Amino acid sequence: MSPRSEKAVVLLSGGLDSATTLYYARSQGYRCRALIIDYGQRHRREIRAARSIARRCGCPATLLRVRLGWGGSALTDRRLAVPRGRSLREMGRGIPSTYVPARNTIFLSCAASLAEAIGASAIFIGANAVDFSGYPDCRPAYYDAFRRVIRRGTQAGVEGRPLRIITPLILKSKAQIIRLGRRLGVPYELTWSCYLGGRRPCGRCDSCQLRAKGFKEAGKVPVVKSN
Amino acid sequence: MSPRSEKAVVLLSGGLDSATTLYYARSQGYRCRALIIDYGQRHRREIRAARSIARRCGCPATLLRVRLGWGGSALTDRRLAVPRGRSLREMGRGIPSTYVPARNTIFLSCAASLAEAIGASAIFIGANAVDFSGYPDCRPAYYDAFRRVIRRGTQAGVEGRPLRIITPLILKSKAQIIRLGRRLGVPYELTWSCYLGGRRPCGRCDSCQLRAKGFKEAGKVPVVKSN
Repeated sequence: MSPRSEKAVVLLSGGLDSATTLYYARSQGYRCRALIIDYGQRHRREIRAARSIARRCGCPATLLRVRLGWGGSALTDRRLAVPRGRSLREMGRGIPSTYVPARNTIFLSCAASLAEAIGASAIFIGANAVDFSGYPDCRPAYYDAFRRVIRRGTQAGVEGRPLRIITPLILKSKAQIIRLGRRLGVPYELTWSCYLGGRRPCGRCDSCQLRAKGFKEAGKVPVVKSN
Repeated sequence: MSPRSEKAVVLLSGGLDSATTLYYARSQGYRCRALIIDYGQRHRREIRAARSIARRCGCPATLLRVRLGWGGSALTDRRLAVPRGRSLREMGRGIPSTYVPARNTIFLSCAASLAEAIGASAIFIGANAVDFSGYPDCRPAYYDAFRRVIRRGTQAGVEGRPLRIITPLILKSKAQIIRLGRRLGVPYELTWSCYLGGRRPCGRCDSCQLRAKGFKEAGKVPVVKSN
């Protein structure tokens, strides 16, 4: 089967990495289905952003609710503070309170389920282990482990045609991601990166800082979302 | 830390394997939290059964909705028929239409998230690779792969205290499971195994047949649920 006729499930969070990943998957000839997961995050902006990006890209989107009501993260529990003003060195050092327990494992397993159900051959996820907040589920070794789960634990896997887990951004800097995305026509003005859900990005959480650094290094003023 | 002070998350479906697993975990001194997942299965009976079992066991239960609306299985799509009257030999041969894509991976990842959030050290799951329907995510090699995901993809894992994934029934026959459960006082009359949601178990789906075989071999008339 040529890539052109293959389907892919693309995890779409509404941030710039996943938006770039969606456009990248499309550029590779896949027929993409975006999977947007409402995991009980503290604001709805990123879900709205994800929907807009999928619409702009012209690909169907599925919203799945997996509301992790048990907290354990500043992104799902409003009583915990989102760290702000951390230096890049601090980000590289430990796992911050915005870590959501097992989030990418939940995302990938739901994507695997959808992919098997619709007969897709690949899952794309915009994980990144370079300009990132220190989350363990963004590193290549983690994805290698998950690929083994897919080979052993799905029908497609044991029948010898395992889903591919594709992480096109994993070793790119934020600036490289943005440069790639510009070539692909990613509508960065629709993306939302800020961990908080204010009217405008806070500019000080890890995610805002990494985004700003990326745009600066990529040679363009940061795009500010204004929806 | 002695096992007696440790918490565990126990995946509870309402069937006899998971009920036995819950009572087993409790017998090992764990403070158990049952995790019941509504994945959009075709009937509510097993969720009601799971709640009753948790209550009888005296352990708190968390219900999580992950409604897999995309079908791909006779257990989540009413348009697909649940196979009935298959021989045990047929069950051993292939993956039936009741396979739910990536179900146990979704269950385990949600359990891992809850376990990290509440500070549990173990996850129990009643998977069984002996008297089973042929699902790939019930085999020991699959659990070994998932353990690696936990080591690499969770905060607890990378910090050197990975969650244990415990599958106490994986190599037991249904009869051995039932004999263990009887010693532990499992209320089998509250469990529900039938894939269909009729007033009474159908007696002919894989799950009913494996249950009946187990009770027969364990030396007792099958318990029929009548709630």
